[in-house]
Amino acid sequence: MIRYDFNNLRAERIGEHGVSDQEIKALEPRLRQAFENVRKMRQEKQLGFFDLPYDTALADEITKLAADLKRKFENFVVIGIGGSALGNIAIQSALNHPEYNLLPNGKRRGLRLFVPDNIDPDRLHGVLDLLDLNKTVFNVITKSGNTAESISTYLIARERVIKTVGIEKHGEHFIFTTDASKGELRKIAPRENARCLTIPATVGGRFSVLSSVGLLSAAVTGVNIRALLDGAKKVDQGQRMDQAAGLVEIWKNPALLGAAYHYLLDVKKKKNVHIMCSYSHRLRDVADWFRQLWAESLGKRVNRKGQVVHAGQTPEKSVGVTDQHSQVQLYVEGPFDKVITFLSVSQFDHDITIPQAFDDVEGFAYLGGKTLGDLFHYEERATELVVTQTGRPNCAIRISKVDEEALGGLFFLLELQTAYIGELYDINTYDQPGVEQGKNFAYGLLGRKGYEERKREFEAAARPDPRFVVST
Amino acid sequence: MIRYDFNNLRAERIGEHGVSDQEIKALEPRLRQAFENVRKMRQEKQLGFFDLPYDTALADEITKLAADLKRKFENFVVIGIGGSALGNIAIQSALNHPEYNLLPNGKRRGLRLFVPDNIDPDRLHGVLDLLDLNKTVFNVITKSGNTAESISTYLIARERVIKTVGIEKHGEHFIFTTDASKGELRKIAPRENARCLTIPATVGGRFSVLSSVGLLSAAVTGVNIRALLDGAKKVDQGQRMDQAAGLVEIWKNPALLGAAYHYLLDVKKKKNVHIMCSYSHRLRDVADWFRQLWAESLGKRVNRKGQVVHAGQTPEKSVGVTDQHSQVQLYVEGPFDKVITFLSVSQFDHDITIPQAFDDVEGFAYLGGKTLGDLFHYEERATELVVTQTGRPNCAIRISKVDEEALGGLFFLLELQTAYIGELYDINTYDQPGVEQGKNFAYGLLGRKGYEERKREFEAAARPDPRFVVST
Repeated sequence: MIRYDFNNLRAERIGEHGVSDQEIKALEPRLRQAFENVRKMRQEKQLGFFDLPYDTALADEITKLAADLKRKFENFVVIGIGGSALGNIAIQSALNHPEYNLLPNGKRRGLRLFVPDNIDPDRLHGVLDLLDLNKTVFNVITKSGNTAESISTYLIARERVIKTVGIEKHGEHFIFTTDASKGELRKIAPRENARCLTIPATVGGRFSVLSSVGLLSAAVTGVNIRALLDGAKKVDQGQRMDQAAGLVEIWKNPALLGAAYHYLLDVKKKKNVHIMCSYSHRLRDVADWFRQLWAESLGKRVNRKGQVVHAGQTPEKSVGVTDQHSQVQLYVEGPFDKVITFLSVSQFDHDITIPQAFDDVEGFAYLGGKTLGDLFHYEERATELVVTQTGRPNCAIRISKVDEEALGGLFFLLELQTAYIGELYDINTYDQPGVEQGKNFAYGLLGRKGYEERKREFEAAARPDPRFVVST
Repeated sequence: MIRYDFNNLRAERIGEHGVSDQEIKALEPRLRQAFENVRKMRQEKQLGFFDLPYDTALADEITKLAADLKRKFENFVVIGIGGSALGNIAIQSALNHPEYNLLPNGKRRGLRLFVPDNIDPDRLHGVLDLLDLNKTVFNVITKSGNTAESISTYLIARERVIKTVGIEKHGEHFIFTTDASKGELRKIAPRENARCLTIPATVGGRFSVLSSVGLLSAAVTGVNIRALLDGAKKVDQGQRMDQAAGLVEIWKNPALLGAAYHYLLDVKKKKNVHIMCSYSHRLRDVADWFRQLWAESLGKRVNRKGQVVHAGQTPEKSVGVTDQHSQVQLYVEGPFDKVITFLSVSQFDHDITIPQAFDDVEGFAYLGGKTLGDLFHYEERATELVVTQTGRPNCAIRISKVDEEALGGLFFLLELQTAYIGELYDINTYDQPGVEQGKNFAYGLLGRKGYEERKREFEAAARPDPRFVVST
């Protein structure tokens, strides 16, 4: 289903900036250990994301709920941020019509979908200004139940909905996706008469796309969510063990090999930038989802032994062929500080033939009769060759077409790779301690009880020295 | 109009990963030289982007053309890529309603705008599938007049328009924005009966947003393009000379200082990643425009002396507060390899008060009565403080509100900074030799005459070794 091509990461092919077969070989004991560590955490039920592909009962429940919502509403708004939005956006842009929200009602497979994913007031105003709230349902997604951005947005939406449909009926316009028991949102659900979906306690935000977090917004737009889960399941079940030796088959496990190469590229070859370059316009937002997965999981100050390591590649989103006209100059001629993962798709749903015209105009004539897909793929292959020829490590994750199964598989493959590479770094892949301090300062500034000290600390911080503020 | 705050780049404030005042001081002679080099190129008419803010005649012509198009059409499609699309998108998302294309006709200030910026066939199919071509005008933008992606898209659109409106009338549906005399597109304009706008020969794609490239799509959506130019002009004219000494006033020139800091951060402090973090949802696509400007201008293999330097920071797009839930963990705890430029906006057009509700629920109550804008700004300041406290170099470009003048000024400021830093690197800021080889391979694969050798070279390149292609 998914082919992961490591050829152009190899030193044997690209020279000094690649990883040698010998270096991978030498890592094998640690790779087996990484696999075993993850398997152990999975068996101990610490890593809930492993169970998600198998929860067909949830998929059926959500499909039913979606059918009900499709009867009652026209618009579906996700109130969530980060891990409660990026997967939703990625599914939408991969699997639905590129101008989905603009299609007339008959031509769409479901509700219009809006995922503001930010609290810039001008952004939210734009959405609320547009929508008829009588026909709008909001899905508030926050695992903790008290994410400041999502709760604020919810309070605003709630007031507007009450104004529009009245206090008795407003609860029908909200679905809460949150922890099974913890958190404020769960607490108020009964008195608000809001339906609830559960985020399992052991599923972190950035690993939650295949949970209730990502599935409902997908289902209301007509995505086959069972097939999404099936794709993930296939990737999981494809991880084979050598039964005789009782060991993982490293060379048949793309996620584990991907972890090995990227780990060595970072720590040995100093490739501190990881470009996720989607040669599919539809998969561009998978790169944004990946940015969170990679950055929050691996960007860590200390390892599990408590040693200060300041780990973490910077993931960057890039889109082919667009970024050939923006970033490729840098990739080809700039510093040897990057590794590129190309996302590659063989077939399009709607290829288009370029008409033969202007046969006397050389710069046009050679294009006639080819398809736009040909041009796209030729440019992709040309770019892959040039970055390889100039010694830049690059790999490719190839799928035959963008559909539910491939996308589910792709999510799961990248999650697996992240889990394994975290073990190689020997860090806690699943926490995010670095964001707490910023939240605390914000709470202090907002006057939240218990954060008075943070407010004082903020106020005591150095003010800008006006000599270093320069105006145009 | 624009305040550029360098405080948190200073070693005196953030420690070893910052640039000391002494280091900036030592660079002053080279900064003066950089300024003089750019001034000389400008005087020799090599840098056309300097003239754009003063071309009010063009602005008036385009405003008139836009008024005409607004009478005749409903949809405006930009066929362009890279420098012929990124500025157009940035203006659109900064200055128009966040759901602009979804607004009903009466509520929009002009035509619906589509900028596919890619040739993925599924993407283009989506646009063509949606639009009534009777009411659609296409703006084909390519300076060379033979960009393969844009010409292919044009040929497809042309055939569809001819099918819809007939061969006699189809020319009215196309406007060509291209070189004054060179290139195939200019050549066919008369026989196609297409209107033309000119891209000045000395304006490169990534410096062209304030030329005919960016202005027409802005004008048809109701943007005040004179004010855009005015903003740029003010930034240009704000560059003051010390008349007595005949020297640039470095400490009053934010673009020059920005160049100084970023140059030293890259070459001395090894900050090879430059995050453009927009704390304004509306300015998020300015970061994508900046990515091209910075990457293509500075990503160079050799300097002007011919020495191999492999220069160039990797620019990355980031959006606040969204990326606090995705990237900030990495910024705060990861490697010391980044510098962040925050884009910061003081006022929103439509702030929204968070309603007081659930006074008994602590996690909600503290938010009531604040505005969403308060929350947004508190989070911004908190994030700035945390990255500063953890010793990460960061600066901020602050505007009071997102409007035409500020946006035009912002574009120009970043262009100036790029021009100056290119002189410090001593590279050719204005070429992009690294993209030619990829184009040549693609031409070879497409069977274009004269590129047979490239095709052979492509075919002779090593095939993937199947041992290193691993399937799920």
